[in-house]
Amino acid sequence: MKTIKPLRENKNTAILLIHCPDKQGILATVTEFLNKNHGNIIYLDQHVDHQERIFYMRVEWELNGFAIPCEKIGEYFDTLIARSLEMNWKLYFTDDIPLMALFVSKMPHCLFDILARYTAGEWDVEIPLIISNHLDLKPVADRFGIDFYHFPINAANKDNQEKMEIELLKEKKINFVVLARYMQILSANFIQHFPQKVINIHHSFLPAFAGAKPYHAAHERGVKIIGATSHYVTTDLDAGPIIEQDVTRCSHIDTVEKLIRKGRDLEKIVLSQAVYKHLQRKILVYKNRTVVFN
Amino acid sequence: MKTIKPLRENKNTAILLIHCPDKQGILATVTEFLNKNHGNIIYLDQHVDHQERIFYMRVEWELNGFAIPCEKIGEYFDTLIARSLEMNWKLYFTDDIPLMALFVSKMPHCLFDILARYTAGEWDVEIPLIISNHLDLKPVADRFGIDFYHFPINAANKDNQEKMEIELLKEKKINFVVLARYMQILSANFIQHFPQKVINIHHSFLPAFAGAKPYHAAHERGVKIIGATSHYVTTDLDAGPIIEQDVTRCSHIDTVEKLIRKGRDLEKIVLSQAVYKHLQRKILVYKNRTVVFN
Amino acid sequence: MKTIKPLRENKNTAILLIHCPDKQGILATVTEFLNKNHGNIIYLDQHVDHQERIFYMRVEWELNGFAIPCEKIGEYFDTLIARSLEMNWKLYFTDDIPLMALFVSKMPHCLFDILARYTAGEWDVEIPLIISNHLDLKPVADRFGIDFYHFPINAANKDNQEKMEIELLKEKKINFVVLARYMQILSANFIQHFPQKVINIHHSFLPAFAGAKPYHAAHERGVKIIGATSHYVTTDLDAGPIIEQDVTRCSHIDTVEKLIRKGRDLEKIVLSQAVYKHLQRKILVYKNRTVVFN
Amino acid sequence: MKTIKPLRENKNTAILLIHCPDKQGILATVTEFLNKNHGNIIYLDQHVDHQERIFYMRVEWELNGFAIPCEKIGEYFDTLIARSLEMNWKLYFTDDIPLMALFVSKMPHCLFDILARYTAGEWDVEIPLIISNHLDLKPVADRFGIDFYHFPINAANKDNQEKMEIELLKEKKINFVVLARYMQILSANFIQHFPQKVINIHHSFLPAFAGAKPYHAAHERGVKIIGATSHYVTTDLDAGPIIEQDVTRCSHIDTVEKLIRKGRDLEKIVLSQAVYKHLQRKILVYKNRTVVFN
Repeated sequence: MKTIKPLRENKNTAILLIHCPDKQGILATVTEFLNKNHGNIIYLDQHVDHQERIFYMRVEWELNGFAIPCEKIGEYFDTLIARSLEMNWKLYFTDDIPLMALFVSKMPHCLFDILARYTAGEWDVEIPLIISNHLDLKPVADRFGIDFYHFPINAANKDNQEKMEIELLKEKKINFVVLARYMQILSANFIQHFPQKVINIHHSFLPAFAGAKPYHAAHERGVKIIGATSHYVTTDLDAGPIIEQDVTRCSHIDTVEKLIRKGRDLEKIVLSQAVYKHLQRKILVYKNRTVVFN
Repeated sequence: MKTIKPLRENKNTAILLIHCPDKQGILATVTEFLNKNHGNIIYLDQHVDHQERIFYMRVEWELNGFAIPCEKIGEYFDTLIARSLEMNWKLYFTDDIPLMALFVSKMPHCLFDILARYTAGEWDVEIPLIISNHLDLKPVADRFGIDFYHFPINAANKDNQEKMEIELLKEKKINFVVLARYMQILSANFIQHFPQKVINIHHSFLPAFAGAKPYHAAHERGVKIIGATSHYVTTDLDAGPIIEQDVTRCSHIDTVEKLIRKGRDLEKIVLSQAVYKHLQRKILVYKNRTVVFN
Repeated sequence: MKTIKPLRENKNTAILLIHCPDKQGILATVTEFLNKNHGNIIYLDQHVDHQERIFYMRVEWELNGFAIPCEKIGEYFDTLIARSLEMNWKLYFTDDIPLMALFVSKMPHCLFDILARYTAGEWDVEIPLIISNHLDLKPVADRFGIDFYHFPINAANKDNQEKMEIELLKEKKINFVVLARYMQILSANFIQHFPQKVINIHHSFLPAFAGAKPYHAAHERGVKIIGATSHYVTTDLDAGPIIEQDVTRCSHIDTVEKLIRKGRDLEKIVLSQAVYKHLQRKILVYKNRTVVFN
Repeated sequence: MKTIKPLRENKNTAILLIHCPDKQGILATVTEFLNKNHGNIIYLDQHVDHQERIFYMRVEWELNGFAIPCEKIGEYFDTLIARSLEMNWKLYFTDDIPLMALFVSKMPHCLFDILARYTAGEWDVEIPLIISNHLDLKPVADRFGIDFYHFPINAANKDNQEKMEIELLKEKKINFVVLARYMQILSANFIQHFPQKVINIHHSFLPAFAGAKPYHAAHERGVKIIGATSHYVTTDLDAGPIIEQDVTRCSHIDTVEKLIRKGRDLEKIVLSQAVYKHLQRKILVYKNRTVVFN
């Protein structure tokens, strides 16, 4: 159904995400490296955590006219710059379109929001497949023309089903996974195959109301604001690095059902914003916290 | 594609929306009328505008056990209560599912958001048709299984095309129209056929930046917050009664393109919230302002 | 220093706050009682919690022309209406100006915000005294011309000091207490002397980060939004009925010190909004949750 | 009354604010200049407006150990860097505490908020004087121990009074002026003496409701959100570069009086945030828009 004119920018750029121990001159060193090799910088943001003494940076430059060929940039950067500064770095090319898998259960709102953006061409991504533990949302996948895989999960078959899911994801060369209200807890084994590559949406303002039934808990506590939180999945439930959060007001007139309804709009927007930041390579993770560049 | 289990409440209730000159005892009179006829009130909200001296009320009660048959409620209420209090009132039954038409042009985000909610059963509504001045979004209508009518508009054919649109809407018994980023201005004639029955989304925080290209104007002015506004369409462009507004922060780093991107999420949520309020019969209009009950 | 023209409305009205088991006709009964005794209703809001089956109501009417003399209203209402409906009710007169005591420690921002509103005449309240466990803010009290009492607290003297505080509050006929960043935990004994009459501001979005050092905890967790919560104090620390909450965005660039700075603005506004709602008699408490009327 | 322990950071740093035509290597050039002269950079933020092709930068570094003496930095930077890059630059030292004058009329809320922060030591600023066209707020100035000057303004005396105000401000070496709900329009002559040095708070979400009585206009239009806007004053009324804006929700229940009350909290916080950004030297103005660094 990808029939709508894409909104994508056709950029031929490279992106470096860097973090390293802070010291004088890192910024000058990196920008000088790019400048003298004729790399026109179109984005640069950096942050210094003075408490942890860590330097973070995202820089993007045009490959057109850049003196170092794409396949050599990593090697050169590592040799000339990164090693001596003890840098942890990643290099991305914007014409490498990442492959994303969606995990869903029964609720369609996040799935629809993502597929609508995908179909409208809002994101530079491909979605080769949707995985679910239920069949409820297969018709949605069908109408959007995306392969749907059904892996029912129970206590007895979970290890085996996850093993098959991982094989499928590897076979399809999936780069990252989005849990679009997937109501199963992934095993530590699964998560370790996709470190900082599984994005979840939790339907509360974390760390408040982690775990099951957060709207019920919010109602019981009588909060005046509810929220939603997108985060990278780690082996600690609902405790991974937070990417994005948003909130909306509620009051005594809101029953649990009304909170659930209000929350759906939050959940889908917050999840999609997190996916977009991830796709733009604007997120760095350090010590269970994120740096999210503007 | 209406394959997903609907979320609708199956309510058998009646709703009265009332406004009239304020005086002592209106509330008691109405509630007593319902009580003594065994109408169990499940919602009541009222508001007095002390400046204009107008009383507004929304009351909803269960029809099960109500002493007056549905088809007689209006007559009895008018005779026994409304006339002497000079009431302007409307009566709705929640099992009358309204018919909504969508008008779109080229941008799909509001259309997708509405169709996703429709398919998910979030709203008590039917959408028999989509009208557009362009063919771009026909594939979306097709995939969701909704009839799509193409009425190209230009200066020469506008009167005639609108005439045919009105005929189609009347023939299909459409109750109200939603302009989901429809980029044509409806004529006064069209609007008069659907008073307070055409809901528009304007991509600015009205009354700022009415008219064309509001994101360009917002960028030029250097605002730090952008917004979106849903309103009933009147013959004054972007000046009808406001139903809902929302905003999001922006900054000097946001180009016009980034404002447009950010704005899409606002637009679709604000429009859908307005449609939902309209569907719940929670909006009263008086002198170009709305009362929107909780 | 009360030199600025007061903004107070001079209203001669009575307010009833009611909650009781829900049944048909309560609203009609109460409004009829007021109407037939010539009480002109200027505010009415009600809420039904259909799950708990509880009816909540706030009604305010003009005493001018009301047939029942002020000192008899309670008796008549109780006899004629409240008993048979098992109502829990409170009656207030808006010309009874309540007396508020402030408890502070070292941080002045909430204190200044409250005293500024007090001096500007924003609130119908008197503040006869400020109590503190430190002397730091005595100069502020002095400049605003308010009595300042110093009760240093340590583990050994706490019981005795609280006893003296309670005596002072009773002697001065204090109606309610506001903890304006008072950094001591009140004993259960103290709280029981002022049930639903002690308002606290906690510097987090409760229930997240209850207890000490919430900004440090928020920074450690890497949240993208921080908040503040005003609530009635109960014997469970930071777990009393929530009155008001608000939030503001933060990011990786915010150190703990910046969070503390941002949080100050939230804290003072949220606390003052809660105090204002309390002064307007707009808050009902039921089962550790509040109904806050508009 | 400056009796409270100041919260100021004692920093011995220099700040450069730069804008210039964008070209490759500016960032590297500036950071290299600081690095090789042993200036430890503690803050750096830059922005490129790719449409206007303008480069913006704020950099702050420690003076301790910096090879160029303070009084020579400007000369060296201009000669070695700025001229060839056609830079527009300003140099500030954080131990130069700026002098701020307050202009007020009758409403105290912004004045109190600023004086509270001043007294609490939140800001690195001195406030030698308050100017007003009315005597109403003199008691507030007196209690905070700040000189209060009364310049009544009418059509006949305006030119002369402003002349005397300007003389007073120059004599007291005032660096910038804050209009804390000052209800007079400054003349073009006055403004030209303080270009980008007069900060105003307007009680609407500009550009909506510029000019007089914005809350009345907002109520009349039936908006669902109200706002406040701080901006630099230019000769176009309420049309200068916007520094900060914020909003809050309202509804049909809000009378003009309630909007005014809600608006006060917005106004004071938005104005104080703008003043704080100005004091931190985080604002650049270009073509009637601001760059406000984080």
